[in-house]
Amino acid sequence: MDSNFRQAILRAVDSEFDEQTNFLKELCRFPSVRGQEQAIQHFLADALRSRGYETDVWQIDAHELEHMPGFSPVLEPYAEALNVVGKKPTRTQMGRSLILNGHVDVVPAGPAFMWRNPPFEPYCEGGWMYGRGAGDMKAGLTCNLFALDALAALGFQPAADCFLQFVVEEECTGNGALACLQRGYTADAALIPEPFGETLVSAQVGVLWLQVRVKGVPSHIAHASAGINAIEAAMPLISALRALEARWNDDARRPKEFDGVDHPLNLNIGRIEGGDWPSSVPAWSTFDVRMAIYPGEDLDAAERELRACIAAGAAGSDYLRENAPEIVCHGFRAEGYSLERDTSEPATNARELLAAMHQIVSGSPMTHAPITATTDARFFGLYADIPALVYGPVAERIHGYDERVLLASVKRVTQSIALFIAGWCGLEPIKKA
Amino acid sequence: MDSNFRQAILRAVDSEFDEQTNFLKELCRFPSVRGQEQAIQHFLADALRSRGYETDVWQIDAHELEHMPGFSPVLEPYAEALNVVGKKPTRTQMGRSLILNGHVDVVPAGPAFMWRNPPFEPYCEGGWMYGRGAGDMKAGLTCNLFALDALAALGFQPAADCFLQFVVEEECTGNGALACLQRGYTADAALIPEPFGETLVSAQVGVLWLQVRVKGVPSHIAHASAGINAIEAAMPLISALRALEARWNDDARRPKEFDGVDHPLNLNIGRIEGGDWPSSVPAWSTFDVRMAIYPGEDLDAAERELRACIAAGAAGSDYLRENAPEIVCHGFRAEGYSLERDTSEPATNARELLAAMHQIVSGSPMTHAPITATTDARFFGLYADIPALVYGPVAERIHGYDERVLLASVKRVTQSIALFIAGWCGLEPIKKA
Repeated sequence: MDSNFRQAILRAVDSEFDEQTNFLKELCRFPSVRGQEQAIQHFLADALRSRGYETDVWQIDAHELEHMPGFSPVLEPYAEALNVVGKKPTRTQMGRSLILNGHVDVVPAGPAFMWRNPPFEPYCEGGWMYGRGAGDMKAGLTCNLFALDALAALGFQPAADCFLQFVVEEECTGNGALACLQRGYTADAALIPEPFGETLVSAQVGVLWLQVRVKGVPSHIAHASAGINAIEAAMPLISALRALEARWNDDARRPKEFDGVDHPLNLNIGRIEGGDWPSSVPAWSTFDVRMAIYPGEDLDAAERELRACIAAGAAGSDYLRENAPEIVCHGFRAEGYSLERDTSEPATNARELLAAMHQIVSGSPMTHAPITATTDARFFGLYADIPALVYGPVAERIHGYDERVLLASVKRVTQSIALFIAGWCGLEPIKKA
Repeated sequence: MDSNFRQAILRAVDSEFDEQTNFLKELCRFPSVRGQEQAIQHFLADALRSRGYETDVWQIDAHELEHMPGFSPVLEPYAEALNVVGKKPTRTQMGRSLILNGHVDVVPAGPAFMWRNPPFEPYCEGGWMYGRGAGDMKAGLTCNLFALDALAALGFQPAADCFLQFVVEEECTGNGALACLQRGYTADAALIPEPFGETLVSAQVGVLWLQVRVKGVPSHIAHASAGINAIEAAMPLISALRALEARWNDDARRPKEFDGVDHPLNLNIGRIEGGDWPSSVPAWSTFDVRMAIYPGEDLDAAERELRACIAAGAAGSDYLRENAPEIVCHGFRAEGYSLERDTSEPATNARELLAAMHQIVSGSPMTHAPITATTDARFFGLYADIPALVYGPVAERIHGYDERVLLASVKRVTQSIALFIAGWCGLEPIKKA
């Protein structure tokens, strides 16, 4: 690829960027939280078809996945959970194949009054686009799609299989990405433009979700001493988990990828609910726990330790000792993943190529950093031997209010991805119809 | 009233008791929680009409009540909130008038799986009737109605105004009973068969509800240190309230009516909710507080003390000090009430008459006791100078699961009320149509 051609690719991204911005805005208008992903998936499938892609749209089926490594258990059915994959047939098959992956699901917006503007009415201000999902990761979806559009505008397509994957369930299980593996999609590398600041993710933690259900003894508040308040009974359990979090973050167990990270393994008590009436002693409470582990650590062992910790927290109470909290695992059961540990030739080549393309676009060396969250990269890396590069735009307040993504960064990432595709897959002229 | 006539009244209650039990079962089938009271009220109005009562059915209007003493603020409209009052015109007006009051609203059933049988499918077993509301206080509603039925079966009706009041909102505000005052209903005494074990309630506490709303700082759990967990931020506030509860229960401030009561002023954290997603640092939590005060204590002062306590609990946190929890008062704003302090002649006469009738029915003296809950009695006693007797059947687990009422007790209370009506109002023959 000569320098002039590269410049042409960069200009092609640039000249389509207004359209890309509008497309991102369209995507952000879909409130594609868990269970409401169908509309955006049909919209994306149409966008692929109108561009001449072969599209594969299917409903994921937990039963087909549950025996695969990496599966996360789910309580609800997958009636709304569609995956979409697009590809253009290559004639030459000369290059290395590539998966461009991204998720369409977003986390709930929370109370609308906490937002400056409604979460699903995206708007641009000061070079940022605001809206739930703008950063995590609808911007990344547009990077993948418009990188290929830019190449097409120049008359080219990848000279190897290049799959555009739009998956569901990244925010709670990863079963969307897993379903792509189960359906047979594979490639020599995968790239996921999650919004981590134009930095290549060197490693990611594993994540486990637990739900803790405490039962109390209800009563009329007139006889409060006869009741056990299930809300307050939960509090020592939360304190016990915070103590476990502190132990787990001890330097002793930290792998080198996470050197210098302030607090890699974050506990979160993300939701609580309990009781039915102010004047009744609450007979139940339920809280959701999210805890992280390092790459290479065992999920089952972590779960055992968490359960033991909750049991120890319960042992301080005469009542809970006899009425053990129920612990239900559903949602994330995600192992950690370290791209850095993958020293295979494809992994090394992919990293180096992306670094070179990043340097061309941004004028500075690509940085690497671990993240204290999970992404779908683990499925490709751990279970399909596909090195998975997580590299996406600058965003702020993802999962928070007034989430936003930096548009200049979205453009640069699109450019880097377009160059990467050209370098990894090679290009072939699009046959005129 | 001679002894033979009294025995005839007792037998009349007895012979209708199967019908009364079936009627109670019918009432328990209505899931008449807050906002779903219309159906049972129409059913009761029909029951009154079929017995020849004049009925007054009206929708209560918060705006007409909000300037009255005893009003409790509400957040939701009263679209479903109907009151029903029935009365038969007396021809002689020779006796003392009487209000027979009871509430149709019930507290939520909570999770159905906690019940041995579904909460709104009442059943009888071992002499008890089970179901949400069976005790609190649908049994009492039948006591009032069937006491008058028994007199009617003997050809008599009260020789003074006797109002059968079926009100809503007892469990959250009392605005149903207040609306009866606003509509002009008054009498020389009131009787409310709340399920306190055939014991006359000598005094009741006041109750204040508060909702505490904590805001946190949301974030992706990857950056947990940048967030403030609104669920855990609430915990020191709850601890501070528990310390206040201990102070308030000090013997020093206890009035003599509550001598010997183990723990008169009960705090309850009855509901909590917070957060939207296990992997997002929760940005909000809300919990409901119920706290009691003694009769004669000032509600505004108590509210100020509660607010100061929550502020003090917040002051321990750098974040909450700058981001004060919001405190919203809605629901109960109920003063305490002491029948014992009412030494007026009507109060003394009413107590003595009920005690005498209780002795006849049960063969033992009537006991008196304070309760650590509120009832609608306060409206009559405090704001309308009507002595209000709270005296009802034996029930268990009111506000809990598998709530139940003792049927033999329901019958005895019905008999005592029938005798009380006869003694208080006097009787006149029903004119044949």
